Amino acid sequence: METIRAGIYGASGYAGQNLVEILVDHPNVDLVFGTSNTYAGQFIEGTDLRYIPSDEVNLDHVDAVFLALPHKTAATIGKQAVDAGKRVVDLSADMRFDDAEEYEKWYDIKHPHPDMLTSAPYGLPEIHRDDIAGAEIVGVPGCYPTATLLGLYPLLRVEGVSLEAPIIVDAKSGVSGAGRSATDTTHFVNIYGDIIPYKAGRSHRHVGEIEQEINRFMPTENQIIFTPHLVPIDRGLMASIYVTLNYSITSDKVHSLYLNVYADEPLVKVLPLGQQATFKGVQRKNTAEISITPVGDHFVHITSTIDNLRKGAASQAVQCFNLMYGFTETEALL
Amino acid sequence: METIRAGIYGASGYAGQNLVEILVDHPNVDLVFGTSNTYAGQFIEGTDLRYIPSDEVNLDHVDAVFLALPHKTAATIGKQAVDAGKRVVDLSADMRFDDAEEYEKWYDIKHPHPDMLTSAPYGLPEIHRDDIAGAEIVGVPGCYPTATLLGLYPLLRVEGVSLEAPIIVDAKSGVSGAGRSATDTTHFVNIYGDIIPYKAGRSHRHVGEIEQEINRFMPTENQIIFTPHLVPIDRGLMASIYVTLNYSITSDKVHSLYLNVYADEPLVKVLPLGQQATFKGVQRKNTAEISITPVGDHFVHITSTIDNLRKGAASQAVQCFNLMYGFTETEALL
Amino acid sequence: METIRAGIYGASGYAGQNLVEILVDHPNVDLVFGTSNTYAGQFIEGTDLRYIPSDEVNLDHVDAVFLALPHKTAATIGKQAVDAGKRVVDLSADMRFDDAEEYEKWYDIKHPHPDMLTSAPYGLPEIHRDDIAGAEIVGVPGCYPTATLLGLYPLLRVEGVSLEAPIIVDAKSGVSGAGRSATDTTHFVNIYGDIIPYKAGRSHRHVGEIEQEINRFMPTENQIIFTPHLVPIDRGLMASIYVTLNYSITSDKVHSLYLNVYADEPLVKVLPLGQQATFKGVQRKNTAEISITPVGDHFVHITSTIDNLRKGAASQAVQCFNLMYGFTETEALL
Amino acid sequence: METIRAGIYGASGYAGQNLVEILVDHPNVDLVFGTSNTYAGQFIEGTDLRYIPSDEVNLDHVDAVFLALPHKTAATIGKQAVDAGKRVVDLSADMRFDDAEEYEKWYDIKHPHPDMLTSAPYGLPEIHRDDIAGAEIVGVPGCYPTATLLGLYPLLRVEGVSLEAPIIVDAKSGVSGAGRSATDTTHFVNIYGDIIPYKAGRSHRHVGEIEQEINRFMPTENQIIFTPHLVPIDRGLMASIYVTLNYSITSDKVHSLYLNVYADEPLVKVLPLGQQATFKGVQRKNTAEISITPVGDHFVHITSTIDNLRKGAASQAVQCFNLMYGFTETEALL
Repeated sequence: METIRAGIYGASGYAGQNLVEILVDHPNVDLVFGTSNTYAGQFIEGTDLRYIPSDEVNLDHVDAVFLALPHKTAATIGKQAVDAGKRVVDLSADMRFDDAEEYEKWYDIKHPHPDMLTSAPYGLPEIHRDDIAGAEIVGVPGCYPTATLLGLYPLLRVEGVSLEAPIIVDAKSGVSGAGRSATDTTHFVNIYGDIIPYKAGRSHRHVGEIEQEINRFMPTENQIIFTPHLVPIDRGLMASIYVTLNYSITSDKVHSLYLNVYADEPLVKVLPLGQQATFKGVQRKNTAEISITPVGDHFVHITSTIDNLRKGAASQAVQCFNLMYGFTETEALL
Repeated sequence: METIRAGIYGASGYAGQNLVEILVDHPNVDLVFGTSNTYAGQFIEGTDLRYIPSDEVNLDHVDAVFLALPHKTAATIGKQAVDAGKRVVDLSADMRFDDAEEYEKWYDIKHPHPDMLTSAPYGLPEIHRDDIAGAEIVGVPGCYPTATLLGLYPLLRVEGVSLEAPIIVDAKSGVSGAGRSATDTTHFVNIYGDIIPYKAGRSHRHVGEIEQEINRFMPTENQIIFTPHLVPIDRGLMASIYVTLNYSITSDKVHSLYLNVYADEPLVKVLPLGQQATFKGVQRKNTAEISITPVGDHFVHITSTIDNLRKGAASQAVQCFNLMYGFTETEALL
Repeated sequence: METIRAGIYGASGYAGQNLVEILVDHPNVDLVFGTSNTYAGQFIEGTDLRYIPSDEVNLDHVDAVFLALPHKTAATIGKQAVDAGKRVVDLSADMRFDDAEEYEKWYDIKHPHPDMLTSAPYGLPEIHRDDIAGAEIVGVPGCYPTATLLGLYPLLRVEGVSLEAPIIVDAKSGVSGAGRSATDTTHFVNIYGDIIPYKAGRSHRHVGEIEQEINRFMPTENQIIFTPHLVPIDRGLMASIYVTLNYSITSDKVHSLYLNVYADEPLVKVLPLGQQATFKGVQRKNTAEISITPVGDHFVHITSTIDNLRKGAASQAVQCFNLMYGFTETEALL
Repeated sequence: METIRAGIYGASGYAGQNLVEILVDHPNVDLVFGTSNTYAGQFIEGTDLRYIPSDEVNLDHVDAVFLALPHKTAATIGKQAVDAGKRVVDLSADMRFDDAEEYEKWYDIKHPHPDMLTSAPYGLPEIHRDDIAGAEIVGVPGCYPTATLLGLYPLLRVEGVSLEAPIIVDAKSGVSGAGRSATDTTHFVNIYGDIIPYKAGRSHRHVGEIEQEINRFMPTENQIIFTPHLVPIDRGLMASIYVTLNYSITSDKVHSLYLNVYADEPLVKVLPLGQQATFKGVQRKNTAEISITPVGDHFVHITSTIDNLRKGAASQAVQCFNLMYGFTETEALL
């Protein structure tokens, strides 16, 4: 059995911790290192390893690296790894865009290595499985784009979304989505008992990559309205998607469409009509759940839920990794 | 100083409890009774009264009654009170519709006293103040319609909402909105850590009255998409409203419009641009808070928040009561 | 490989649900039925079975039954099962007492089958392993006694607890401990944001069996002070135990004692000195965690935590079952 | 009517915010400044003032200062204020000890101004009312000592506590007790769903002042066992106190004793026998609630609850202030 020696950059953050949890049980992975500048020297829970500072990594000892790093840093480290002949599973935004200009528009910095973008597919296996298979670099999308795009994909595929009305995404995220660092945002007293909208409208950075992906299926411009909300729960994420249909499909056909499109997807579950996707259905799981509510003839309300740290981060990265190396796609995930 | 002798039917439910809290401090009110069939005989907290069963009420002792009762029961009791010459502040749905047919469509029963509907204004003072002033009966709207309609009203007044796109309302309600009765829905374990959509699309009864009110300003049919969500918080309510504008107004004018329309409203606060309305801003308060986010030229995201038991129930009822009797509108509320 | 055909009475309650979760993965178990009078006809999640009413059980089809039933009902059904030659794992209080009088004192009813008590060991494997091995009937203790007794056991074994001072147990339980039924106690609004002491002092029924077990090691009478508290968390349980030592042991020896006694226990983990046991360490796990804080020379504060539905109910029942049949004790539990 | 010009040092922390809330409604107070080095320049909510850095305070403009500052800093600033002839209400630990050595033992630093200790009474009005009246400096106790001492005081007064058994205090605190700073401790994800014991046994600094106060009534040494727990609630505090009585009082007399001792105390409420004090009874209130559970003849379990930011900090400080100036003790508090 083939064993891949893998390392995790940023192993102490929430995504990194979930990567560790999954990879230690992966039969084809030998976890060689986990970096953390903050926790260097401490044990990595569930392993015999200790966190090392990122500048102490010796890439000779690994075949592949996972990057659970801030954007920009990820590209820099990813470049080194690629140059050293290693495969890269990047959980940051750095490898997600086709186009460096688009990246620069949303992230307000020059892309450190725009050349890398061409070879890196967008790591959403349900849409880009063939491109991810065998790839050397993958840019894994995070929680909001994953939930949103999985919720829209079957309709996009049949070109059923009206171009004339906005696509509304009212998203709700557990607090772990704000990261492990202690900030005013993550202070218990500030979020306890509250629901907090932020970066409303089109100001959240994830709008860029969501539109990039939608544009593969239909010409869209400024059509996505996306408002995330922080909710007083530790983990879980819901994208509540409100879609006007065009005349190619009526709402009563949408549920069947979703059942068909996702019939063979091991990590996406379409709920029976009348049942609604919730946080509880997906917390601590690697699967997405989607519910469909037809409204009148030409409108659907779609609820798409994931665990933000799993299908919205770590487990999706491992799903991509499995595809890159030709392992069973759900290895260590089911 | 004039004193009104008032009684509360359904005084042990959450709305009833909040009515008691407010009315005991109202300088013009003498609280004479509170009914509760379940808690009959027990003290009403904050008073020297004990709950009495509703069939032991002697209407001779009061001038006005508040009905915090289930629909249908409310109309029956309200009818008796009106026939006895008492004023009625009804917190149920029974007096909210102009039209008995519309009521019957949404509530699936014959209206017990359709004649009463003609004289009962819709008890949202910010829109119907003049009709409420001096009225004998008022049908006070509940939490979802109040938050939604306050969030839409200024745009409706200027006929700024497009007829061509749906009006999306993604609503989030604290668990007290589900009532004081112990049910699977209100079981702690069932809602802890979860966000639960329910009656999605157009199946919630409140869609009917929301459309009735919108129709006073613009012809709308099946345009409202309304999905409420239960959230793991005790009280508070948010209506996240997504509106496409027509060409009579651009999005950059909307915030000023709201500031103007609500400038003299003591119980509605429009937040500065860039600030978002949250649960915390309104919990245990009698005020609504509204934030405006322009998106592109022709779209706005509006967040409208209230305490579901206050401006969404009890305090709005008292606001109506104050108008009915000519007291200062915010008496006991500020 | 031996396969035991097993059925669960009371399979829809929280303990029952956890039994199902564990048993469906047990290599030696064929789950044959799950009863639920309330949910009869509905699917049992995670299985192909549907709940059946308890009076439709055919005991011929099983070798063993788990009773996740109210006390008294459990004894009645358990008696039938034993008479039919089946083994019984009883999660109620009915088989826990040595002595029917003691049972009657705490439960205020005549024991339906006092004869069964003599053959049923107390199902806490860490203390009664030898008696449970091969037993036909076991009375599995619930969450409070399990956490308390595991927390005290090593000290009891060395007779280190002073007879002169009370043993204080301040316990904290997640809301699932109050059961799946919707009651005022389990209403979200009633427990959200609150900590609620109940049955304080010596009025909780579990005091009886805790004392029975302590009395095996030392003569104690009315020495246990036990106050449980409901906390706004779904699952988990903490017994905070405050113990005065006698002169046979000093507090600095207690941690080593616990490490030694539990060294080979697969389901009890003694934390390093200085680290405190918490809810998070045990939620959704089958293990108990215990922390020791020496205070002065003659006093220790012990924190003992479990998942109330696992080591405090379902997983302990399966641990007993494994011992009864001679399977690996932790089969399906690690 | 006399008006005292007051300033608050540390006005942006939770205690400081609550001081602002109370003082802006105090008829005898003119709030002149609030300091905050972190938020300097921003508006102080509920006022027309802006936070100023502490080194921009001009003491000439005030008659009294409240110190919601870390220990040591408080003494330094307090000394300046006293030297300038101002009265000082200190919410830190710096003025609470009679004896600088005791302070140094618990706080591990030399007391900056030990001379100030002699003139500063311990600011728990229910015990030290006469000394606080007219005082120039008061050292106001915080949440744990307040709840614990109010819970013990009536028994201490009659010398009813046994010297032979430990006094156990199992305390539970809302997260605001950990302060407004974002730290790992206050990160939502770290405390959500958890109960966390910390500084168990006798290692918490508040043990020192609790013992100092107990020693006024009985000779005690190392008798207090005090373990605080962080609970996933924003505010509120419970001290669960377990007391062995000596032979001067039996447990059945304790409830009457408490009723008598606190009969005229406006800010302490003794609950009826059988009712338990909870977080909800005191949240956002200025009162303490105490419940008594007799256990056997010689033991009582006492539950003492307060809002940690009110009677455990800000409102107690104002209560002391009122006594210092001869105002009605509950001015602005009821």
